[in-house]
Amino acid sequence: MGIRAAVFGASGYAGGELVRLIDAHPSMEVSHLAAHSAAGRPLGELHPHLGGSHRQLQSLDADAGSPEIAFLALPHGASGELAADLAASGAIVVDLGADHRFADPALFEATYGSPHPHPGSLTDWVYGLPELVSVAGATRVAVPGCYPTATTLALAPLVGSGAVLSDGVVVDALSGVSGAGRSTKEATAFGAVAESVRAYGVGTHRHRPEMEDAVSRITGIRPAIVFTPHLVPMQRGLLATVYARLADGVGLADLMDVYSDAYGEAPFVSVGTESPQTRWVVGSNKCLIGVFVDEPTGTAVVVSAIDNLVKGAAGQAVQCANLVTGLDEAAGLTPVGWMP
Amino acid sequence: MGIRAAVFGASGYAGGELVRLIDAHPSMEVSHLAAHSAAGRPLGELHPHLGGSHRQLQSLDADAGSPEIAFLALPHGASGELAADLAASGAIVVDLGADHRFADPALFEATYGSPHPHPGSLTDWVYGLPELVSVAGATRVAVPGCYPTATTLALAPLVGSGAVLSDGVVVDALSGVSGAGRSTKEATAFGAVAESVRAYGVGTHRHRPEMEDAVSRITGIRPAIVFTPHLVPMQRGLLATVYARLADGVGLADLMDVYSDAYGEAPFVSVGTESPQTRWVVGSNKCLIGVFVDEPTGTAVVVSAIDNLVKGAAGQAVQCANLVTGLDEAAGLTPVGWMP
Amino acid sequence: MGIRAAVFGASGYAGGELVRLIDAHPSMEVSHLAAHSAAGRPLGELHPHLGGSHRQLQSLDADAGSPEIAFLALPHGASGELAADLAASGAIVVDLGADHRFADPALFEATYGSPHPHPGSLTDWVYGLPELVSVAGATRVAVPGCYPTATTLALAPLVGSGAVLSDGVVVDALSGVSGAGRSTKEATAFGAVAESVRAYGVGTHRHRPEMEDAVSRITGIRPAIVFTPHLVPMQRGLLATVYARLADGVGLADLMDVYSDAYGEAPFVSVGTESPQTRWVVGSNKCLIGVFVDEPTGTAVVVSAIDNLVKGAAGQAVQCANLVTGLDEAAGLTPVGWMP
Amino acid sequence: MGIRAAVFGASGYAGGELVRLIDAHPSMEVSHLAAHSAAGRPLGELHPHLGGSHRQLQSLDADAGSPEIAFLALPHGASGELAADLAASGAIVVDLGADHRFADPALFEATYGSPHPHPGSLTDWVYGLPELVSVAGATRVAVPGCYPTATTLALAPLVGSGAVLSDGVVVDALSGVSGAGRSTKEATAFGAVAESVRAYGVGTHRHRPEMEDAVSRITGIRPAIVFTPHLVPMQRGLLATVYARLADGVGLADLMDVYSDAYGEAPFVSVGTESPQTRWVVGSNKCLIGVFVDEPTGTAVVVSAIDNLVKGAAGQAVQCANLVTGLDEAAGLTPVGWMP
Repeated sequence: MGIRAAVFGASGYAGGELVRLIDAHPSMEVSHLAAHSAAGRPLGELHPHLGGSHRQLQSLDADAGSPEIAFLALPHGASGELAADLAASGAIVVDLGADHRFADPALFEATYGSPHPHPGSLTDWVYGLPELVSVAGATRVAVPGCYPTATTLALAPLVGSGAVLSDGVVVDALSGVSGAGRSTKEATAFGAVAESVRAYGVGTHRHRPEMEDAVSRITGIRPAIVFTPHLVPMQRGLLATVYARLADGVGLADLMDVYSDAYGEAPFVSVGTESPQTRWVVGSNKCLIGVFVDEPTGTAVVVSAIDNLVKGAAGQAVQCANLVTGLDEAAGLTPVGWMP
Repeated sequence: MGIRAAVFGASGYAGGELVRLIDAHPSMEVSHLAAHSAAGRPLGELHPHLGGSHRQLQSLDADAGSPEIAFLALPHGASGELAADLAASGAIVVDLGADHRFADPALFEATYGSPHPHPGSLTDWVYGLPELVSVAGATRVAVPGCYPTATTLALAPLVGSGAVLSDGVVVDALSGVSGAGRSTKEATAFGAVAESVRAYGVGTHRHRPEMEDAVSRITGIRPAIVFTPHLVPMQRGLLATVYARLADGVGLADLMDVYSDAYGEAPFVSVGTESPQTRWVVGSNKCLIGVFVDEPTGTAVVVSAIDNLVKGAAGQAVQCANLVTGLDEAAGLTPVGWMP
Repeated sequence: MGIRAAVFGASGYAGGELVRLIDAHPSMEVSHLAAHSAAGRPLGELHPHLGGSHRQLQSLDADAGSPEIAFLALPHGASGELAADLAASGAIVVDLGADHRFADPALFEATYGSPHPHPGSLTDWVYGLPELVSVAGATRVAVPGCYPTATTLALAPLVGSGAVLSDGVVVDALSGVSGAGRSTKEATAFGAVAESVRAYGVGTHRHRPEMEDAVSRITGIRPAIVFTPHLVPMQRGLLATVYARLADGVGLADLMDVYSDAYGEAPFVSVGTESPQTRWVVGSNKCLIGVFVDEPTGTAVVVSAIDNLVKGAAGQAVQCANLVTGLDEAAGLTPVGWMP
Repeated sequence: MGIRAAVFGASGYAGGELVRLIDAHPSMEVSHLAAHSAAGRPLGELHPHLGGSHRQLQSLDADAGSPEIAFLALPHGASGELAADLAASGAIVVDLGADHRFADPALFEATYGSPHPHPGSLTDWVYGLPELVSVAGATRVAVPGCYPTATTLALAPLVGSGAVLSDGVVVDALSGVSGAGRSTKEATAFGAVAESVRAYGVGTHRHRPEMEDAVSRITGIRPAIVFTPHLVPMQRGLLATVYARLADGVGLADLMDVYSDAYGEAPFVSVGTESPQTRWVVGSNKCLIGVFVDEPTGTAVVVSAIDNLVKGAAGQAVQCANLVTGLDEAAGLTPVGWMP
């Protein structure tokens, strides 16, 4: 018997990945599955790779049977009520959605276009990037978005140490299509994605304020970031290339020292001077960081690779859950990926 | 401490997959790694997804340190000497290559174009398709090829039961590119594979005699098979569509009964009446079989899906190793895949 | 000024391809564009590759301005009324849809599940496979489906010459995703298609009766075909692998003679003994056929490759239009493809 | 009869694309084909999509038969001698390689690591970016690299007009695999590319000096650029996302005015405020530019999309050839692409 975990939003990609990880977790078990429009359908119909399971998805408002931990993988705006109820019932809540990532309700409103439904609760949440934020002891964890995960792990140590300037940062990132979620839309049809690349949300993507805020809360210094995500024709994987101007006199060795201080003990972050490929991390909870210095322009160029559904979503959620429940940080997770 | 396993040919795709599976196996451990041209290089350079391991590959003739079990993932013709030496030293040998799959040296010569180097040893080997051949107690196991695995699991029960005629069988199969191995060649360049499909080895592919022989040895009836493999633009996955003429009076329910008898207890084979997709099995050791009857022509159409590197190679090898060493058949293996 | 052509269903893939081809045609011009749900939208918004054109799509019932030729690229069931009106107005009608491919209304009903709305008109239509059916002089042309095009070009000469038996034919075919049309559906999302293959419509696909009927009308001999289409992760291209039992004494040279007789003068069909790849024909109006004899089983294995949107749809439609209007068969078409 | 054109390096991707374009050109014809290691082989074997042509490739030093124009698509370092000989014989030379793109031999040596073999000849060459450099009257044209084409078209007008600052420019670009050429290497195997992205040549790619030099020669202002190319899993297409700091008071409307002045008459460059996708241009000679202003940071973000083999290589070469020979700039080229 393991820690009893409920998964809300089990029909989507992140939800399916949560079930895959928890089913294989040595100290956790899925005690409840729920979804919105897929309520009533068997899990194996939605996620045939999970072995044809006949476990049925419940509706979101069904009795969850008092789980010890609840994972929410819901669209933004959908977690508030549910999170409050679950927390009131004593469950630890790990939210993979966007509702609780900002401490400041004004920032939420500016970013998501509507007032936060429970502004008073936001300070109860810890931002679940465990390499840079202590989550032990928390009862409510807001798991970062995929782009902010890859970017903040690359950028925050540099900004925090003063190795780079905080303005004029450029983050240019590439994501596989699973990052757009599972709902069927014209923009993610095979015919619209294969053999093509595109930038999207130029200047307007909601992960920019999140990554600025994350770096600010972690380091006390708010960076000014230009962020452009791109959609590339692959299922999984996310690569962020981060450009920041070096402070005077800072060189590659200094940057490596900064990262060594930040991640020396981290089981899932590796920093080197080689350019990482997303297929080296797909399937794993790793973040691989490659560090370069562009001498002619005095720029740090840092390339950060994750699996958007693992370290960028479900894996990081489990990592946080391990820490808040006192388990080994790496329980049920792996630094080993799939390839080819 | 687990059973000490040596992996020969650790630089290729099947070799990498063996290391991935054995590293995660609860009762087995990699005690020795060897390769031909990659000898001397660190494992993590060849397989960065394995977590940047610094374990070094030895040459094929280095002292393997008396492993209890040896996995050979070598090109055909390369296993003979090594297998004999390892067996002589008392190791259980599991060969993923083609050298020991035939019992009849004449069939080997007709198929591979040169006499078998150790014809006398062939009868010492068991064909490692554990759902249909008993491997318990064996000390030398020849793991089937990827196409013969998917095909034989679909075809042998039908031929053996007399539900279908043994002549006029057509096997039309599709494979991801990893099935062609890792060596760099023009035919498997991205530019030659993406956005295209092709048939190859029409009428001449070496897996045809293997699947005919496998069915013959399992059922006592030798089928006549036309086999056409196709290369499709994906990394992993193999789908075989098998056509066989139904015996008089045989219908879908009869076919399902035959499969139920054959695979009722098998942890990795599932049979249904739905068309399986390769992504439902990629990453798992499953074989998913979908059964159809084409009434107008009296034909059984059976679609069989596997991950060519797992059930079609390394996973099946571990499954056999589990059985010959008395472990649970499913130890270190999973029926759960990756998706998306 | 060229022949004035109207395109109905201009919003889909086949419709867009028609516009691309006619815009570049030396003796034809697009005089009218219409669509169903996309009526009112500019062409360049639906097909940005067509150069950002501001030509607007009209509704299907708008006045088409008396085109000399009308191309219909509509879902099945949608062409009847429109085709009749256009024909009454004196236009030549080339229908890329399924409504007029059968001469026998009973076959239509058995295949499409509802009575044909204009059964009396079916005999007015010519099946537009110009290498095997004379279309000169026709005023109504029903362009074959993509699978029947590739299959019938491979199979009909062999059946018609008696080189192969007409029963026990297996057609196993692979298609890129554009063959499923442009409408947004879960089954054709990138997440559902990339890195996977699947069979679909096993035993029930509507192109099986069409190809049986096509061969029958062309040769007088009705074959019995088992047909399994597969979806593969690529945008364009279709490969059909056709298996038929050789008549006694027939060998490869005989098959080549049969094809030489059939296609000696055809500008778009090439027959050889090499296995064609779909990327060799993508973008062109070619059909490449590779012929093999499987000696052990006495089977002809014929591999046929086309671009499903060109020779399998829009290109063949233009080829037919050229012939019925007395233009050069190849006007505006090319045997040269795109690669990589 | 058209202008007689020789193609040197006809075996590669750019060479094949040149043949495809010239074969379809109304006023140009391929009079000679040559290659290095592929000399003696038929064109149709190397480029099966070109219709099975039996034209044979000559060796590079064979008599080219006095072509009026010669296209060189050779590795860097291989064009010098040949270009000099051809020019001496009176041929117009259009070099798609890197040897003649710099005016300054020192810059060539710094970039390519060896002294230029014909430093004195460099000033005879015109940089073939015809929208920004006049090529009429030239007899030697050096066609830009693919990344410099997309980048310079986006950046030069902004730098030249003073709308953006010339330092602190970031160019983050994505390329399909054909950009790496056709030679078989491990890094471009399907197994190494599909389902993955990577940055490469971080800080060291040779196209960075080229794009800095191109902007400098066109505008008189030398920008400082950080450039990171990425390899993405697609055959064709290139997307450059260019970040530059806006000069005080400059807004989106100003940027659009600048581009309108630069490209108002250009048949192949279109500028808008929408994010272009590479599939909108693949197959065409277009460059689509999407312009954005990031208000919070005062940054111009410009996304530029081309087909790397057409506008980024062979198409641009033909465009230049048209201009230097007095033909219509767009002869044999098309602004219309392929999609899907």
